[in-house]
Amino acid sequence: MSEVSWIAVDWGTTQLRAWALSAGGQVLQHGASARGMGSLAVDQFEGALLELIDGWLPVDRITEVVACGMVGARQGWREAPYAEVPCAPQALARMISPEVSDSRISVSIIPGLCQRSPADVLRGEETQIAGLLAQWPDYHGLVCLPGTHSKWAEVRGGQVLSFQTFMTGELFALLSGQSVLRHGMQGDHPLDHAAFDAGLHAAAERPLLGALFGLRAEGLLEGLAPGAARSRLSGLLIGQELAGLPEHWQGLPVCVIGDGEAAERYRHALAVQGISARTLGAEQVTLAGLAAAHEHIRGGI
Amino acid sequence: MSEVSWIAVDWGTTQLRAWALSAGGQVLQHGASARGMGSLAVDQFEGALLELIDGWLPVDRITEVVACGMVGARQGWREAPYAEVPCAPQALARMISPEVSDSRISVSIIPGLCQRSPADVLRGEETQIAGLLAQWPDYHGLVCLPGTHSKWAEVRGGQVLSFQTFMTGELFALLSGQSVLRHGMQGDHPLDHAAFDAGLHAAAERPLLGALFGLRAEGLLEGLAPGAARSRLSGLLIGQELAGLPEHWQGLPVCVIGDGEAAERYRHALAVQGISARTLGAEQVTLAGLAAAHEHIRGGI
Repeated sequence: MSEVSWIAVDWGTTQLRAWALSAGGQVLQHGASARGMGSLAVDQFEGALLELIDGWLPVDRITEVVACGMVGARQGWREAPYAEVPCAPQALARMISPEVSDSRISVSIIPGLCQRSPADVLRGEETQIAGLLAQWPDYHGLVCLPGTHSKWAEVRGGQVLSFQTFMTGELFALLSGQSVLRHGMQGDHPLDHAAFDAGLHAAAERPLLGALFGLRAEGLLEGLAPGAARSRLSGLLIGQELAGLPEHWQGLPVCVIGDGEAAERYRHALAVQGISARTLGAEQVTLAGLAAAHEHIRGGI
Repeated sequence: MSEVSWIAVDWGTTQLRAWALSAGGQVLQHGASARGMGSLAVDQFEGALLELIDGWLPVDRITEVVACGMVGARQGWREAPYAEVPCAPQALARMISPEVSDSRISVSIIPGLCQRSPADVLRGEETQIAGLLAQWPDYHGLVCLPGTHSKWAEVRGGQVLSFQTFMTGELFALLSGQSVLRHGMQGDHPLDHAAFDAGLHAAAERPLLGALFGLRAEGLLEGLAPGAARSRLSGLLIGQELAGLPEHWQGLPVCVIGDGEAAERYRHALAVQGISARTLGAEQVTLAGLAAAHEHIRGGI
């Protein structure tokens, strides 16, 4: 078995994921825990990391750990101040190294990106965009990163020119789980494709605030089924997100990053609008982006 | 002191309010409790009502109790099926009387309204609209009823022609209290008028889903103060609501029902659009609407 060369870490608000890589880029180990940034005090980050990677560490030398995500937020392990767009996705010269007690590791955190007007921020997605660029250095187009907060970025000439966040996933969770709409959409249901498409269509016809309560009313008046209501809400929100993209982005190619059902929903919603999007796996681009940062660190030693 | 003639009840999801009235329409007693429809099983309604009104009841005769609101929902005391618009606000011939154990009272529940397309429902607001019509029988225009779920209705010739619900208040509560935006808008703050106006303005410029996260980003990047962020969110949502009104309603006069700060925000938001809205107090129109229903019952005896 190959030796662990370095460790890649994607550390978000709710989840910590880590991969041990060989010098050749092979994943030797991987693991995840629920010890996301949101649940940790500043002095708990090192312990949470070691809990996951302790057994992977060679004893005879220092192992580089390269991390992206909310771990670099102000409330994270150590703040890695944002780089301002337009700029390369990863501000590699400005990575931040928190102090560690364990002499076996050296940790680097990749800064997120900010935009002044309209004000916006991201952390973690910059590394996925860098991973996409590692594969397609000349990519000119939009990158769509579905999630609790979907991010869209315009990429050209190896730079992120602008980006925009949509609270689509969080709004779906709040509306389906905690608003009055929850009464009509309880339980787990597979996606109802016709209802999802109806939601996409309705999003183009009616502003969101006015359309939402219709889901409840149709449940009361016409017995709209929970699975259909849930799928239509998803279509409504994703449709509104697509309708809210800046006008000057129209006509650009789109690459959706993600492998799960969320990515598939976006791909389909784009197809309905006549946009044939490429897709790249999320883990693949995250690892490629973290590897690019690791290359930079190695080159600098 | 005058004798109690009848009892008016406004029974919503979270609150129960009751007034004891003289034959001349004077409020002799009033009270409220948190025993709303949402917290009661079907066999608990009578007890919750008597808890509030027991001491008001004359012993020598049956007192009419006239109720509106969610008490008539399927999950309420007894379902009062919706009347379908276009129709008079109160379907007085189709009031429902739940059985009661206490021989001192007779209860009537006023049906709510439904609309088939776009699907919509309301309960309680029909009685406020009837109260407005009791004062202005020839009113032709829009009635705006701010609340957890704002309702807008088009009234003409004594009828409700159409209506629309916006989940504005509920969305404000979820976003400011439970989403990622809560970090930037904690605490109680008086309305920041400039920030509220900025939100109204932004609502016209950018779709809601894209504008929301900007509040968080401005907090992180520019130190947007919690009170300003909260006020701007309110402006954003109310602005989106106004922008989402059906086009064929444009140019109609508007009457806002409400006396609190919410009504004032709507009045101001309308004024910014050049619409000078009249206002009527919520309790006043609720009581006038319940009195109209009581007149009908008396006339029928």
